[in-house]
Amino acid sequence: MRVGFVGLGIMGKPMARNLLRAGYPLVVHNRSRPAVDQLVAEGAVDGGSARGVAEQSDVVITMLPDTPDVERVTFGPDGLAEGFRPGAVLVDMSTISPVATRAMAARLQERGVRMLDAPVSGGQRGAEEGTLSIMVGGDAETVERVQPLFRVLGKNIVHVGPTGAGQVCKACNQLVVALGILAVSEALVLAQRSGVDPAKVRQALLGGFAASRVLEVHGQRMLEGNHEPGFRARLHHKDLRIALETGRQAGAVLLATALAHELLGALVARGQGERDHSALVRLVADLSRASGGPAL
Amino acid sequence: MRVGFVGLGIMGKPMARNLLRAGYPLVVHNRSRPAVDQLVAEGAVDGGSARGVAEQSDVVITMLPDTPDVERVTFGPDGLAEGFRPGAVLVDMSTISPVATRAMAARLQERGVRMLDAPVSGGQRGAEEGTLSIMVGGDAETVERVQPLFRVLGKNIVHVGPTGAGQVCKACNQLVVALGILAVSEALVLAQRSGVDPAKVRQALLGGFAASRVLEVHGQRMLEGNHEPGFRARLHHKDLRIALETGRQAGAVLLATALAHELLGALVARGQGERDHSALVRLVADLSRASGGPAL
Repeated sequence: MRVGFVGLGIMGKPMARNLLRAGYPLVVHNRSRPAVDQLVAEGAVDGGSARGVAEQSDVVITMLPDTPDVERVTFGPDGLAEGFRPGAVLVDMSTISPVATRAMAARLQERGVRMLDAPVSGGQRGAEEGTLSIMVGGDAETVERVQPLFRVLGKNIVHVGPTGAGQVCKACNQLVVALGILAVSEALVLAQRSGVDPAKVRQALLGGFAASRVLEVHGQRMLEGNHEPGFRARLHHKDLRIALETGRQAGAVLLATALAHELLGALVARGQGERDHSALVRLVADLSRASGGPAL
Repeated sequence: MRVGFVGLGIMGKPMARNLLRAGYPLVVHNRSRPAVDQLVAEGAVDGGSARGVAEQSDVVITMLPDTPDVERVTFGPDGLAEGFRPGAVLVDMSTISPVATRAMAARLQERGVRMLDAPVSGGQRGAEEGTLSIMVGGDAETVERVQPLFRVLGKNIVHVGPTGAGQVCKACNQLVVALGILAVSEALVLAQRSGVDPAKVRQALLGGFAASRVLEVHGQRMLEGNHEPGFRARLHHKDLRIALETGRQAGAVLLATALAHELLGALVARGQGERDHSALVRLVADLSRASGGPAL
């Protein structure tokens, strides 16, 4: 199976590298040059363009920032669609709109190309270690065919349902994580403002029903004031926008998600969009701080 | 050490029973009779009143619904304060206001009585199995003295800080759990309304950063539509009120907690206060359901 990979960013590069190391012939493309050169040095072939990648691959994986990026790489000039042959498979592992995903899958199907949505959770570390959670949407036969690649990239691989279901699942994941970060932020700020050691509170809460990976990982980041990404607030803000749009389309009213979206947006507006999403605790703390100056 | 126990409800009765089984001589009191009779049949002594319990005990544990209950049992007619001798210890394991706790501790200290706040997490099952998380506020010496009792009742015992710190920690716990339930509710409703199997979403999310005990336990309850308590929505609503009051006193602005408080309040107003707090998913689902009738 010849594999193509488009999008060699913080997530995509280590994922592509894992496929190379697992012995797959790999054709790559990326908007900026250095990541391509690096992977070529490790044995990959430079596809030259998305189209070039598609021409030389049975399965192409995309790992891009947002919906318009995936649409442009797929259907834009020199895009994948110009290079795909019938029977090819596009596996989009980006986090994008489920609605746009379904539309793209239908367009590709007309050309005999199958598309899976397979967004991931687990961050840069999960990408590097090949331990990502992968949430897959698409037909069972194609999922089966691509399964060996998924097993190289991740651990908890769930075929959630038909096309778009992977992205819906990821939207659910992102809203749960965002609200977890907001909850832990409010708890630790409440503790600190009440004169109680937030580290002790985190420790106590980890032993009961409040226990979560967010409390463990992001709670520790908050205590250390370590907001190096990690996962950027700006991207999480984008993901909650997708969750809310998906909710509107499906008729789901998501009040808490809307609040978290607004607060992450405020964090971005304050110039903190490139910091880790755990920096939300700074905004919650600042809300609670007395200000001497005039409001307007 | 002679131990007294006041408040033999869903939580208090199994806790008192565990102390009896561990060999502690136990004097009990409860507003309603049957629980007293049951524990007397198992070897406890009926104290007749809170005062009676205090007269016969070195350490008295209270496990009551809300702040006014603890104040009445302690300082009301025939209350604990009338029976305590200097050197006695009151361990309040109820979930009540940290501010009221500090005031009560100061009043008791004038009579030579020490007070610890030691609210718990882990629910009825944790109470029965002696695996509660216990969040303790108070002076180290008294905590040390009572430690053997805590070890009978719980597993994760954290001395969080001085008087009130246990209740602050519990408020933090309750807001994190409530927001966890709200997050999982929104995620599962979003999935279902989008035509994606919520059970698959729960399974996928458990493998990544969205993993939490709430997703595991309450998520499963939501899938089964099982909202038998467990922990009653009405009591969780009360606990978030305490968290918000504590926040206001301390100057912590808790936007997400305020939203969860309001939604739990709506659940109570709809007559669902006696159901498990996981029933919040019903409210989130109903918000998203089209209604044919007039609004007003």
